[in-house]
Order: sequence, then structure tokens, then C-alpha cells
Amino acid sequence: MQMRFAPPARAIAITGFMGTGKSSVSKHVAVRLGLEWVDTDELVERNAGATISEVFARHGEAHFRDLESAALREALGGGRLVVSTGGGMLLRGENLELLREAGPIVCLEATPEAILERTSSDDTRPLLAGTDETPSEAVARLLDERAPVYAQADYQVETTALTQEQAAEHIVVLLADDSRGCYFTGRPLSVPVDLEEAAYTIRVREGLLGELGGLCPADEPGVRAAVISSDNIADIYGDLVLGSLAEGGWAPTLLTVPDGERSKCLGELSRLYQGLAQAGVDRGGCVFALGGGVVGDLAGFAAATYLRGIDLIHLPTSLLAQVDSSIGGKTAVDLPQGKNLVGAFHQPRMVVSDVEVLRTLPEAEFRSGLAEIIKHACCLDAEMFEYLGRHREDVVSLDGPTLEYLVARNCQLKGEVVAQDPLDTGLRAVLNYGHTVGHAIERAAQDWELRHGEAVALGIVAESRVAHWLGLSDGDMAARQEQLVAQYGLPVSLRELDYERATRALHHDKKIVSGRLRLPLVPALGRFEIVADVPLELVERALRSLCE
Amino acid sequence: MQMRFAPPARAIAITGFMGTGKSSVSKHVAVRLGLEWVDTDELVERNAGATISEVFARHGEAHFRDLESAALREALGGGRLVVSTGGGMLLRGENLELLREAGPIVCLEATPEAILERTSSDDTRPLLAGTDETPSEAVARLLDERAPVYAQADYQVETTALTQEQAAEHIVVLLADDSRGCYFTGRPLSVPVDLEEAAYTIRVREGLLGELGGLCPADEPGVRAAVISSDNIADIYGDLVLGSLAEGGWAPTLLTVPDGERSKCLGELSRLYQGLAQAGVDRGGCVFALGGGVVGDLAGFAAATYLRGIDLIHLPTSLLAQVDSSIGGKTAVDLPQGKNLVGAFHQPRMVVSDVEVLRTLPEAEFRSGLAEIIKHACCLDAEMFEYLGRHREDVVSLDGPTLEYLVARNCQLKGEVVAQDPLDTGLRAVLNYGHTVGHAIERAAQDWELRHGEAVALGIVAESRVAHWLGLSDGDMAARQEQLVAQYGLPVSLRELDYERATRALHHDKKIVSGRLRLPLVPALGRFEIVADVPLELVERALRSLCE
Repeated sequence: MQMRFAPPARAIAITGFMGTGKSSVSKHVAVRLGLEWVDTDELVERNAGATISEVFARHGEAHFRDLESAALREALGGGRLVVSTGGGMLLRGENLELLREAGPIVCLEATPEAILERTSSDDTRPLLAGTDETPSEAVARLLDERAPVYAQADYQVETTALTQEQAAEHIVVLLADDSRGCYFTGRPLSVPVDLEEAAYTIRVREGLLGELGGLCPADEPGVRAAVISSDNIADIYGDLVLGSLAEGGWAPTLLTVPDGERSKCLGELSRLYQGLAQAGVDRGGCVFALGGGVVGDLAGFAAATYLRGIDLIHLPTSLLAQVDSSIGGKTAVDLPQGKNLVGAFHQPRMVVSDVEVLRTLPEAEFRSGLAEIIKHACCLDAEMFEYLGRHREDVVSLDGPTLEYLVARNCQLKGEVVAQDPLDTGLRAVLNYGHTVGHAIERAAQDWELRHGEAVALGIVAESRVAHWLGLSDGDMAARQEQLVAQYGLPVSLRELDYERATRALHHDKKIVSGRLRLPLVPALGRFEIVADVPLELVERALRSLCE
Repeated sequence: MQMRFAPPARAIAITGFMGTGKSSVSKHVAVRLGLEWVDTDELVERNAGATISEVFARHGEAHFRDLESAALREALGGGRLVVSTGGGMLLRGENLELLREAGPIVCLEATPEAILERTSSDDTRPLLAGTDETPSEAVARLLDERAPVYAQADYQVETTALTQEQAAEHIVVLLADDSRGCYFTGRPLSVPVDLEEAAYTIRVREGLLGELGGLCPADEPGVRAAVISSDNIADIYGDLVLGSLAEGGWAPTLLTVPDGERSKCLGELSRLYQGLAQAGVDRGGCVFALGGGVVGDLAGFAAATYLRGIDLIHLPTSLLAQVDSSIGGKTAVDLPQGKNLVGAFHQPRMVVSDVEVLRTLPEAEFRSGLAEIIKHACCLDAEMFEYLGRHREDVVSLDGPTLEYLVARNCQLKGEVVAQDPLDTGLRAVLNYGHTVGHAIERAAQDWELRHGEAVALGIVAESRVAHWLGLSDGDMAARQEQLVAQYGLPVSLRELDYERATRALHHDKKIVSGRLRLPLVPALGRFEIVADVPLELVERALRSLCE
């Protein structure tokens, strides 16, 4: 069972009974993850201007718990952090809820003997003070009382036999498999795409282009490979990628094409073939497709057909390519008569998505890629939909874990669909949400600048209305989709659109049978239905509504 | 279980007890199959100048049986025929053997009552004359005596309830599934190729190009298709194929390339793609590849990649294409840097081999195709090897059933290998017999005229010697292969060969690892062994032996 990538944690909480080493261990974890570290006990002491023993002695436990809750809120109000909390923090349901919403909770444990030994030289522990019990009796009682509380943490770590460094390392390993903590552990996220014939993995993280040698080394030293890229991308990342591949044992050659869709043609393809032959790439070789969708499609088709197919590794550099076009195995070139008229299915051996490169994208291109993410959110993932609505700042500020989450989760969503329909004969239709109207708009807008993502955004708005008019969803559903699209600066209406021309383009859609269309529609957030007989006039009406 | 195609029959024998209708039924069968008809009883009477009753009366049964055997030998000495024989023909083992060697034997049967009724008005039946038995007793006794003899026929047909025409039709149906009789029934031979993902059938017969409409009709009227051919072939067969496809509901467009290997290039491919787009061929369309290996590879690759793959039907017009290149799903185009450097695996939906077209081939091209047949015979089919040795006349005179046998059987042999190894990762290496040395010779002979088949013939001769030198086969094995190659006018030595250059080419073979080669070799006729570590110097020595 594959882990479902969830939005990144705001805080990794580390708690546990006294003497289990929470403070020291959590400090180590924070350093290891490169996060801030806050200890709520320290914060309480700072805020109260007194030690915890003093607070307990003067005002009692209840007052201390109030201060502790306030400190927690304060800690969670800032940036991402590792927070260590007093052993009683989880006693209040309110605290537990706050921590749960923020991220994974780790509870450290130790044997009563270890706890007694670790705390024996410390007389500042208020809970062991002022009772008639022996320390040993008090520890046994408290551990017993708190057992059900600590059981509510996501992870329990037994520290008795571990050094603080070992305990911290153990936590980092646990987090690597945690759906919200995995973004902080420094390991690439792994998204398996389970195709029967050709399973492969998508690796996602900041900085991966510099680590290709280790991620995908050559089978033996000196194997010829080609890095196929476009001029601009090659200028920025060419040396980095060539150097990194050389470290992995490859003998790589860089082959470039001019930037832009016009390179997805037979002429450039022919040049690439000859470049591959001249570089001596043989059956054991590999094509690395370094670029956006155009390079991915073109280099992918070259790899699919050179020597009847050699290995292909995608290194997508645009958001659209990372969350969409590098997944699914479709490769293609254009003909003068139309886009993608020549192509092949060819699954990559691996996809490596370095989200760092998204920071060098023109903003409009980044926004265009977001349209496909919004599409996936609408049809397939209500949680991501909510996340996008609430965390716009993280997204547009290109926060690392946020980008990793969006890329990994979208790869996962598309990968699951593709795995169930590798040859695009059924289910994959859902990925077409927003694209029927979107394509019509794109065709009608041939002469002026409209990005694919902008057309898809308009398509989502239009098709959400179709679902509403069909009685498939309530009006709120369409409004929420429109709102999210608008929130990301994508268009929700287009007064300049030549409606007649777009309608004519719509009529050329091959999915039309007897005036009816097969469309994926969204009845509720994160769900879809493929409706076989949508009346064409409803889609026309939705298209018209965009121009009004 | 698939029928194994055997060499075509010389005679279809129809025998049976008196009154079962042999003469009339066999005459119908002969007309139906377009074969000569001979009745041995008639031949005996003609030769003896007397009726059979008279022969029996004057000289007794033994003498009649001698005359009957002589008549049978005479009948079988001519062309192909349907022979009907007297009811006692199979009594002599010698006759049975002659008939068995010539082809299938059908025995007609009827109930004693039917026999009595059918023979009651006839007093010329010698075996029922001159005994004390009633006719009914005599029939019962004779049927009883002969039952074990008649059981030795290949087929028994009960005629009591059938008209003569029905009995004849029944026999034709039986023959359609007979490994030696199938060539005469007018039905296309069907060779299934059982690939897991894409099983298809190869249809073989004279005249099939005119029957495409019926063999592979369009799914619905008006589906766009492209016939891709070379100029010369299109001149001869273009109209026939277009007309025939139109009858099958297709809307076909003819796209042609210049004749010759130079058309297997990206430039012509690009023209074909645009031709397909202009002709409006869509995902439901089909490419018909009408031509030899070049057209098959080029049109096959176009079909594999246009719209990410559409249906492909091969209509091979050269012997090489019919027995070799149209089977296996390999498609390709050449680059300036080398042959077949760009390609795809794409299994056809059907292969239609009209052997009639082989009659318009230049003789040298036909002979070149024979080299691959000889290769299959050496490695995979001792019976075909023997047949080729004994029936040179039938082969070079382009006898219809012989061509059908060779094409169908070779498709079957290659199809079985391909089905077991669709992606060319192991067993398919056997198809490379003769090709390691052959390719080296081809490369060394670049500047002058040497056909692929001639190079393969030389390769067979050389590699058969390697097997002998390795102690894998005795010397006779190599001599027999050389003899068969020579018998068909293919070269067994080549004094003009630049040995040094050929050796250098051999050294470029990718199968060489540490001075050793993986080669399929022939230990005995119709068998092969893939030997992993053949010393390179043995192959060099064999190459050198061709120039001495």
C-alpha cells in the first residue's frame, strides 16, 4: 500500500514522559531537518519569568497547563518547527488537536528504571515532588495514568537503549515514511507508478538535478547517454546535469533544440536521431529529457523509436511537465496538419523532478501549470483542493515542502489513473476535465497569447457549470471551483473570446456522437463521474457564459 | 493445436468398396479442386483392351491386381491429380505405400443395404459373380474382410445419406484441414501467430490481393485507409488493391515511395505522415503495406507511430517479405549512420500473402528470398530441407501449391519462434543463422552488387563449417547444406571477397564478448543449438574458407 502524500507538516511534535529525553532529542531532530526548534516548557518559563517548579508551587498544575497551552499556540503561530512539549501536554484534548493539525506527533518512551536513573539527580521535577510516594511509586503511577494519552501520538519511540543521536535518527527515519513529515527528511520523495509492464518511480525534491549520478547511475562506467534539452534550459542546467551524470558513470552528450513548441517537429527529431547515432548511444544507453513538455514529448519519442526503443529518464523542468506531461508514457511530435499526430507510448525508467528549478520559471508559466493541479484537485483530491484554498501564500512564494507536496501528490494522482488505464482507453478520460472547452478556446485563440493552463482554467469554470446545469452538483460546487481558479490569478472569463470560432472548434471534437459528448464532470470536490451523453448545447452555453 | 503445413500432395486418392460412389464422387472432387482425374479401373481396361470382368474371367484376380498396380504407377507418374481406385487397391501394401507418399487417402463407405441397392442393377461386378453366396452374403463377407484395409485410409466418408455432390463437398472440407491437401481447396491457408498481446493470422494463397475486401473488410463503410507502396509495385497492383479494398468498405488512398532501400528514410516517412493526415486517416483507420521489405518496414513504422499507432495489414510482395520480414513485428527506417536505427515493434492485424505476385519478381530477387527459406529448413525443419532438395523443379517453376507450402510453412516456423520471443531477447537468435558471417560479407561488399540472400547463403555455408569444426555436427551436415545452397543457384564461395575487410566488419559484431561469439548452429538437419562461446577465430576461418 502506497503512502498518500498529505500537505506538509507545520510542526513535528516530540513529547513523552520526563526523562525520556524529549528536549535533547528534539533539538537533534530540528538540526537534522533544518527546522526551528521550540520547547514549550522553556517558552512557559520565559513568559512566566519563573521556573516550572515555581509556577507549580505558586499557582498549581491547572495554571501551568493554561500557560502551556498558550505557549503551544504561540509556537505554532510562527514558521515550521520541531516542537518539544512537556510530558503532560497531551493531557488536554485541545492541545492534542492543535498538534495533530500541525503535523505528526512522536512520543518518546523509556522503562521506569531508565526514567528513575535519568531523573535521580534532578530535583526540579514538580510531579515527583511533594507526595508521600517514593519516586519509584510516583513514576509507576504516572506512567500508568498517561499510557492512554501517549498512545494517541502517531509514533512511539522507545529510547532506553538509544543515544540521543540514535533516537533522533530513528525519528527522521519514521518521518521519511510519514505522509506529512516526509518533506523534511532530505530524502527524495518516491512516487511509484505501478504499470504492469513497466513500473517506475518518480523522485521529487529540491536539488535533485545535482544528484542524478547517485539517483540513476549507469549500469557500467562509460555507457553513452544523451541529455536532450532546449537552448534556454540547457544554458541554465546543462552543465549541472552533465556533471552529475558523469559522476554516475555515464558518458553524456548534450543535444539541444530551440525553445518553443515549434521544435516538436520531424526536422528536430531527425537531428536528434542523428545526434544519438553520432554520440554512439546504443541499446544499453539512455535519453535524459531535460525540459518542459515539448522536450519531454520530443525526446521521449526519440527514445521510444531510436533502436526500437531505449531507456528514457524524464527530468521535467516546468510545473506542467512535473505534475502532468512527464507521467503517462505519451510521447509525440507535431505535423503541420496538427499537434501530436505522430507518437508512441513509451514509459520512462524514472522521472526526477527537482522542484528547485520551478523557482527559475516565468511566473505566468508557473501559474499555467497550476491549472492542471487545480484540475486534479477538483476531480480527485478534496484535501488538496482545501489546501490550495488555504495556503495560497505558500504556493505562490514557492515554499519548498509545498512544491514537493504538490508535485508528489499530483504525480501520485495521475500515476494512479494512468496505471489503471495505461493505453488511454477509459478511466484516463478524467484527466481531460476542463480540456474539452479548454481545447476549443485554445483553437479559437490561435492568434493571440493564451497559455494552455489559462485555457484549462476557463475550461474548468465552464465545465463545472455544465455539471450544475445537469443537476449533478449544486451551484456552490461551481462557485468554489471558479473561486479557486481566480485565487491563483487564472482567468475565469474571457470577453475577447471569439465565441463563434470557439463553438466551431468545439464541434470538431472527436468525442461528439449525435450531438452528445462524453465528459468527465465533478459532482463533489475530489470526485468525478464520466457522463456519456452531455448535450452539446449545454457545453456551448457554458462556453458562451465565459464571454459574458 | 495448429496443423503443421506439409509439402503439397501429388495425388488425392479416393477409394472404397463397390457401390460407394468412388468414380463419380472423385470426378466431382477433381472438378472442384481443378485437378486432373484418373480412375485406375478405367486405365486397366484401356491398357488391357478388355473390361475388368473379362480380365477377371480370363486371368483371375492376381493378374488383375498386377495390372492395377501398374496403372496406379502410371497415374502417379504424371501431374497432380485426383485418383479413384478400385475397391481392392489397398489390399497390396505396395499400392498403399505409393498412395500414402503421394497424398491423403479417402475411403468412401456405405451400409451393406445401400451397397446392395446401388449395385443390384449391375451384373458386371466380378467379385459378386460366380460364388454360391447370395449377393447379400458376399457383400457382408467382403466388407468384413476389407474393414482393416479401409481403416488404413486417412479419412473415412460415410456416403449412404449423401448425394455425390455432397460427398465431394465433404471431402473438400476435410482436405482444407489436411496438411498436404489444404493447398487445393481454394481457401486461403491460415497461419496463426499466437502473440499474447496481439495474435493475428497470416493468410496465404494465389490471388488474394483481389479478395482483400472479403478477407479484411472495414469495420464500417467509409473508414479511411492508406495503401503504402513503392512506385513499381503500385503500378502493377495498385488498382487491384484499391478496388478490392473499396469493395470491403474502405475509403483507401494510395501513397507511394520510390523503389529501393533509399526510401526507408526519415524524409519519405515524413511525406507518408503528411499523406496520412491529409487523407484523414484516423485512429480507426488502417495502413496496408503493399510491397517488399522496404515498404513493410517503412509503412509499418508509419503505422506504429501515426496517432501513436494505428492498425497495420501487411501485403508482402517479395518472397523475402512473405517468408521473413512481414513476420515478427519489427518496423524501421534507416539513418545516414546505419540501417534500421529508428524503429518500433508493431504487430500487424493481419498479413495477406498472395503467392501469385511472386511470379512477377525478378528471378534474382526470388532466389535471394530462398536463402531465408533454406536457413529455416536447416535450423527448424528437416522435412522442408528434404523437400527443397527433391523438388527444385516445382520451386523454380513457381508451382502454385509449392509456393503456398513454402510461404505458409516458413511463416509458421518464424511465427512460432517469434511468438515465443516477441521482443527478440532470446530464442529469436536462431533466425540469425547464417547472418553473422552474412552481415560481415554484406558490409565488406558494400560497393558492389550482392543481395542479402546471397550473403546469407554464404553465411550458411560458412557457419555450417563452424559447427563441424566444433564437433557439433559431422562433415556430411555441412556438405548437405552447401549442396542445397548451390542447387538453388546461390553462391557457396566468393573469391572476389575482400577477406580483410570482411574480418574487420565481423569484429564489429556486437555479439562478440572477449573474443567469443554467441551463434545459432545446426547439429543435425532441422535442429539448432545456440552456442554461447564460439571462438572468433573459427568464424574467421570459416569466412576465409569462402574465398579459397
